Amino acid sequence: MTDLDLTADPIELCAALVDVPSVSGDEAVLAGALERALRDQAPHLELLRSGNSVLARTDLGRERRVLLAGHLDTVPIADNVPSRREGDLLHGCGTTDMKSGDAVIAHLAATLTEPRHDLTLVFYDCEEVEADRNGLGRIEREHRDWLDADLALLGEPTGTAVEAGCQGTMRVAVTVRGRRAHSARSWHGVNAIHGAGEVLARLDAYEARRVDIDGCEYREGLQAVRIDGGVAGNVVPDECVVTVNFRFAPDRDLAAAEKHVREVFDGYELAVTDAAPGALPGLSAPAAREFIAATGATPRAKFGWTDVSRFAALGIPAVNYGPGDPNLAHTREEHVDVREITEVHATLRRFLA
Amino acid sequence: MTDLDLTADPIELCAALVDVPSVSGDEAVLAGALERALRDQAPHLELLRSGNSVLARTDLGRERRVLLAGHLDTVPIADNVPSRREGDLLHGCGTTDMKSGDAVIAHLAATLTEPRHDLTLVFYDCEEVEADRNGLGRIEREHRDWLDADLALLGEPTGTAVEAGCQGTMRVAVTVRGRRAHSARSWHGVNAIHGAGEVLARLDAYEARRVDIDGCEYREGLQAVRIDGGVAGNVVPDECVVTVNFRFAPDRDLAAAEKHVREVFDGYELAVTDAAPGALPGLSAPAAREFIAATGATPRAKFGWTDVSRFAALGIPAVNYGPGDPNLAHTREEHVDVREITEVHATLRRFLA
Repeated sequence: MTDLDLTADPIELCAALVDVPSVSGDEAVLAGALERALRDQAPHLELLRSGNSVLARTDLGRERRVLLAGHLDTVPIADNVPSRREGDLLHGCGTTDMKSGDAVIAHLAATLTEPRHDLTLVFYDCEEVEADRNGLGRIEREHRDWLDADLALLGEPTGTAVEAGCQGTMRVAVTVRGRRAHSARSWHGVNAIHGAGEVLARLDAYEARRVDIDGCEYREGLQAVRIDGGVAGNVVPDECVVTVNFRFAPDRDLAAAEKHVREVFDGYELAVTDAAPGALPGLSAPAAREFIAATGATPRAKFGWTDVSRFAALGIPAVNYGPGDPNLAHTREEHVDVREITEVHATLRRFLA
Repeated sequence: MTDLDLTADPIELCAALVDVPSVSGDEAVLAGALERALRDQAPHLELLRSGNSVLARTDLGRERRVLLAGHLDTVPIADNVPSRREGDLLHGCGTTDMKSGDAVIAHLAATLTEPRHDLTLVFYDCEEVEADRNGLGRIEREHRDWLDADLALLGEPTGTAVEAGCQGTMRVAVTVRGRRAHSARSWHGVNAIHGAGEVLARLDAYEARRVDIDGCEYREGLQAVRIDGGVAGNVVPDECVVTVNFRFAPDRDLAAAEKHVREVFDGYELAVTDAAPGALPGLSAPAAREFIAATGATPRAKFGWTDVSRFAALGIPAVNYGPGDPNLAHTREEHVDVREITEVHATLRRFLA
């Protein structure tokens, strides 16, 4: 039975969270400990348990509501649990992604009993795995009202920067066809792999767009992520498939993104295999402006797809803001500079207190 | 217990051979029947059993020796055994590839007791499967003297044409390297699949050579037979491998073929993964010239790799000459026009009697 002290310094709390393993799908022990701690140490909050997610909220009748969210799960442990402190660095699986963010949120939940805005705290499961297992998705389906807010802050590691919105992503399969023949009599065939050369040439020549939205620069990309072709070692192949990943700025919606990709590969057979919309920064919303002012930061664009996009789809402005270097996420060397935990905590307290 | 009458018309003998299934690896029954028939009906021949191969030869002290060879095995049966006669067509698995050739050879073995040249007859196993199971290969290793000859005639289906020599084949892997990155930040990476576009462009622009050797035109080919690249759907890949099959005329040896391919892909990492030399037509040898004269045919180049190449490597002129349309080989509809059996038998008898 793990006891968590939510009122402790968020640095200590982060270490305590890291010391409870919670690889995706196995968050039950950590979720249980957090639920008990919130019940005991934050009696001013309404609680909800959903699977291995724990939610809590105030109901003070404030004009605006701010939602703070963090996932509880980590990627598989790589000999880096329990946590280990070394000067200003706290090492261990999840220190960056994202138990340091969780610690700040949990500490604020327990200690801000009279926040300026109503608060909703969401600790969710299965963010590091397939999208259809994502705990936020389940909450959206089963407890939609718990996600209502004027601003959502996701504590994902940003190195204390404010990252606004995110790029969309789309995967398409471009298929080049030919005619099969024995490779000893290749003039009877049409080689589909040779034909794919033109597809690769277009990718190589592609000039990715950069666009400014709400002061954030988004940089797009169009990349082959897979190529497959071949029947046998003595056969001129009749099919070659290039899988292309388009990362696009959030001023394109899915339809516009698809239209663009179809233009690039005009003349080729193309199928969309996978897509997720981007998220506009949404920084013109009052709660977002107030938050930006509190941090004093210049927001920048988020490139990877994150759960920010999910809130954007619900019409809720959302940003990523948290301690930890995102480049250390998912590495064996994962660690966080604890001064960033202190800084993020101080900024959020200034904004919310 | 199957009894074969080697003195019967080769058409009837072909049907009898087809009616004894002999898929690669399961030639024992057919080889046993043939061995008994040769012992009983061709007592003038020295016999050798090697695995599921049966060999026989004269020793008449003639100036030259001609070797006639045919494989006993077939590809898997496709509801096409036993054989079925329909007018001039004999249907069934192996009718073309190559029990009609075997029937002619076996009939000549039994009925030409005083041939003009010494004869060696080779009925071998496992031609239709991996090269290292090929019965001729085993015979070469264990009974090399049995392959001595001034001319080797392989009864593979050629539609009664004389096909001389064969192309060589070489497979190379051309590897393009890049630098891995997240596809959302693709400008940090170098996409190896995009880089492979130049390899495909060279293939597409390649002008295959045609060359005349001993009156046969050989047509080369350089074809991508496989392409592989990709790490994950969100990763700029750092490696792409294009597997290329070079079919080359027999005036290039393996070293020259490799040199040529390295020139084509100059600047790229390249590894030879597989190669087999071609076979020069060898039609200037006296026994070959005599055979060509007997057939009255204009020899043409063989494109696929066949066991002719094996004899060429031993310094023995070798040609393919047999009844049956090679395009019907390995098909469910396999059949032979029995008039071609009669024609091939008559020609060989004229040459050898």
